[in-house]
Amino acid sequence: MSKRIITISREFGSSGREIGKRVAEALDIPFYDNELITIAAQKSGYSEELFRDADLHPTGSLLFSLSLYGTGGATFDLPLNDKVFLAQSEIIRDVADQGSCVIVGRCANYVLEDTNQCLNVFIHADNFTRVDYACKENGLPKNKAKEMVQKIDKRRSTYYNYYTGKKWGDMNDFDLCIDSGRIPVDTCIEIIVEAYKGLK
Amino acid sequence: MSKRIITISREFGSSGREIGKRVAEALDIPFYDNELITIAAQKSGYSEELFRDADLHPTGSLLFSLSLYGTGGATFDLPLNDKVFLAQSEIIRDVADQGSCVIVGRCANYVLEDTNQCLNVFIHADNFTRVDYACKENGLPKNKAKEMVQKIDKRRSTYYNYYTGKKWGDMNDFDLCIDSGRIPVDTCIEIIVEAYKGLK
Repeated sequence: MSKRIITISREFGSSGREIGKRVAEALDIPFYDNELITIAAQKSGYSEELFRDADLHPTGSLLFSLSLYGTGGATFDLPLNDKVFLAQSEIIRDVADQGSCVIVGRCANYVLEDTNQCLNVFIHADNFTRVDYACKENGLPKNKAKEMVQKIDKRRSTYYNYYTGKKWGDMNDFDLCIDSGRIPVDTCIEIIVEAYKGLK
Repeated sequence: MSKRIITISREFGSSGREIGKRVAEALDIPFYDNELITIAAQKSGYSEELFRDADLHPTGSLLFSLSLYGTGGATFDLPLNDKVFLAQSEIIRDVADQGSCVIVGRCANYVLEDTNQCLNVFIHADNFTRVDYACKENGLPKNKAKEMVQKIDKRRSTYYNYYTGKKWGDMNDFDLCIDSGRIPVDTCIEIIVEAYKGLK
């Protein structure tokens, strides 16, 4: 089978990262998430902390920034978070060039949209499931967990909308959207593996 | 395994009906689509043609009509298309009560939303795939096929939005959304069967 990339976007608390990791294990292909950030940080010389917080405060749109500051060699004038995004995008294209893999987050579906070798997946779940996840994973009381879910999703959607010019969670951007609050994680993994093998 | 209902909503030309029919065959459970309309027509005494055209011209919202005309015994005052919808909803609940089945269209995911025994699926595809389908299935030239796709989707979304008060194609209303333009029909069927068996 030829090279294929699985990109996974996910709501906070939907187990999207776990699903991505276990899909990569099932298919015996590399998995990139925080690892991606580390590689990017090492390659570009930016600190790892900066990359980790890169999705905190984007405003406006990347296209607007590029229209102000130019592209290519002129990126030294771009705001720092845009430079970080462009560096990350370069890393995403690099690892995708190397062979089949799973990439979670970082708008990878958008960065790789010009290739038809991607299976783009979105994992979502109802609020009850996600707040429950945040309680258990972070040892938080329910009201704090609820706040955390809202805050992180807001951050992810702002980041996605800013860098892609699209709307986070629009099913038309994805080949497969799965509700992990209704379909168990093991079945989600089987479904993604099935889709990966059958992809046109 | 206990009773489970698969509801399928679909964009025109996405092969959603074929997928639903073949999923029902694979699981050896009944399939309802136009059959549903016929049963409803026979049961209620309305003509079959009326049911077939029921999604042509809804405007406003069903809740608004109900607030004007009342519910239950008072439905004789409702506009005809609302009466048809309520009769269809009764049929959908009836067949769902009888056992596992696949129901395509007619807002079945909404009608059965109070049961947790449903796997709600949305099948979509890119415009190129859908126009190509309309050309082949209806022997139309490309421009006419394009018009047909737009017109039927507009009708389906208006119908869904009117009767459910929700937005057609919002992934949060579905457990599984699949792009049949990217994932072959055979794989779509395998994925739905897998999800049906694994449903929480």
